Amino acid sequence: MTTVTPATVTPATTTRRSASTVAARGKGRRATMTTPRAGGATRARATVRASGGAGDDVVRVMVNGVSGKMGHATACAVVRREGFELVPYALTKRAGATTDVLGVEVTGVDVSVEDAGEVLERAKREYPGFVVVDYTLPESVNANAELYVKHGVPFVMGTTGGDREKMLAEVKASGNYAVIAPQMGKQVVAFQAAMKLMAEQFPNAFEGYTLTVTESHQSSKKDTSGTAKAIVASFNDLGCGFDIKDIELVRDVESQTGKMGVPEEHLLGHAFHTYRLTSPDGTVSFEFQHNVCGRNIYAEGTVDAVGFLKRKIASKDPKTLYDMIDVLGEGAMK
Amino acid sequence: MTTVTPATVTPATTTRRSASTVAARGKGRRATMTTPRAGGATRARATVRASGGAGDDVVRVMVNGVSGKMGHATACAVVRREGFELVPYALTKRAGATTDVLGVEVTGVDVSVEDAGEVLERAKREYPGFVVVDYTLPESVNANAELYVKHGVPFVMGTTGGDREKMLAEVKASGNYAVIAPQMGKQVVAFQAAMKLMAEQFPNAFEGYTLTVTESHQSSKKDTSGTAKAIVASFNDLGCGFDIKDIELVRDVESQTGKMGVPEEHLLGHAFHTYRLTSPDGTVSFEFQHNVCGRNIYAEGTVDAVGFLKRKIASKDPKTLYDMIDVLGEGAMK
Repeated sequence: MTTVTPATVTPATTTRRSASTVAARGKGRRATMTTPRAGGATRARATVRASGGAGDDVVRVMVNGVSGKMGHATACAVVRREGFELVPYALTKRAGATTDVLGVEVTGVDVSVEDAGEVLERAKREYPGFVVVDYTLPESVNANAELYVKHGVPFVMGTTGGDREKMLAEVKASGNYAVIAPQMGKQVVAFQAAMKLMAEQFPNAFEGYTLTVTESHQSSKKDTSGTAKAIVASFNDLGCGFDIKDIELVRDVESQTGKMGVPEEHLLGHAFHTYRLTSPDGTVSFEFQHNVCGRNIYAEGTVDAVGFLKRKIASKDPKTLYDMIDVLGEGAMK
Repeated sequence: MTTVTPATVTPATTTRRSASTVAARGKGRRATMTTPRAGGATRARATVRASGGAGDDVVRVMVNGVSGKMGHATACAVVRREGFELVPYALTKRAGATTDVLGVEVTGVDVSVEDAGEVLERAKREYPGFVVVDYTLPESVNANAELYVKHGVPFVMGTTGGDREKMLAEVKASGNYAVIAPQMGKQVVAFQAAMKLMAEQFPNAFEGYTLTVTESHQSSKKDTSGTAKAIVASFNDLGCGFDIKDIELVRDVESQTGKMGVPEEHLLGHAFHTYRLTSPDGTVSFEFQHNVCGRNIYAEGTVDAVGFLKRKIASKDPKTLYDMIDVLGEGAMK
């Protein structure tokens, strides 16, 4: 049920700094209060609207995997986002990990020591209505989804891998609110969907065109970009007849900084894609590029997904399982 | 009712060369026969299927404006296309004009001498089921559409300008089969439609992004690209907040061959467009280009539209007025 491999025993402690700063970014004037918490940790301040009553318009987010790169980037986006509050503890597989997120200290609760389910139940009391963001590991995906469902915690699953079909089926059947998507970069998803729409509506519009695809990622990425594969599938429906194995993978620094124009500071974290379509007679060419440096686009997309999920919960939407296409479809409501 | 300004009297003569070659490109084996025609001209060979009966699967096309650049390019595409036959005469405003189209001589029938309606009636007898393609002049658009409707001739209107609203309303009310579209470049229309679909389905997905637009055309084109304007409208629905007047118009040869990469032989006829979207923090960029040299894409798209119209007529489709989106939507049937 838990996500982690056993590790050394480490007490879960939770401290939070700058909570008032975070709360102050929320819309409207708010008062904060500090309550004591069992377990030796300081309860982060519950946000209460100055107009009275519990501040349930504040979106509280627990980021599991906060010590990882994507988790940390997402936690930062939560802290930056107006009206959002970061829960100062999170499930982790690393004993005693504490992560600083723009001044908010998030304590990693080692689930080999504390029961992960109990941690979620505690958070439900302390941060009512909180949403989980999961950026853990492929091998934890299914167990984590089951855990969130069991405790009725809405979640955004940003972690890739695992048995997706099983997870989607189980989460859907449970009626637990969730956004599950392998690609959180909202604009990339929008472009990918636009190419799919074009292929569905105008099959073979690019019949006879020659396609070339080049993608560059950090050299540690060995496999071909999943996004590139998905977009190639649409171009093939448009009549291109392209073989996935002909995608050019750029992984060497020289080509990345030269030919692809990747900024040096992003060599270790980027996703550049170029698709070029040329007509049979060579007189017409189309070129599409989506070039992402760092993780900000994914982090912001994830926080958008959390906000989306909160609105769906508030409106008691009968649909409970969503993907990024659903999030994008409500773009006007952001 | 006619399209032209009076000119000197020139007898309409029609001769055709290489008709058998053209017919031989049609699908299936065909025999050809020559029949005499009133009016002193040689009737081009009617194509008869070897299996017997009239060869009504041959798509016959009259290109009005064949002496112009777009008309000529389209007539060439007709001659090249399997199963299509070029009607060897066409309405013209130029007295005595004869145009060679890949070996097929097309005689311009001066409508200040012969009645344009009678020419169409004659063509109905000699080239049953023929479709008109119109690449004439903006000032002829409305009169020509009325003429085709009056004589029940299906047509593809590639000419831009005129009172579009009036034409569309009248042609629709008439029930005359027609494709009317200001942009015949099928793939450009598909891309434009894809951006519109993206904007409709994912409003504000690119909120906060900065857009830059650069377009290059032959220096004789003074106004801003209509396609660029249409696509910018979609990007604005996606949240870009771009002012049409900020589109960069490239009309000087140096920038065209240098920065834009326009081949020298296409300086006098090209349409290059680049759209670049950059995220607020500069970490994400999207670039879309559609670069067209010459007229082939428009000519091929026009012939596709003719084929589409013939299928609609054959199936007695209750809808009779179409645009290029409709043509693209049937892409799989080409």
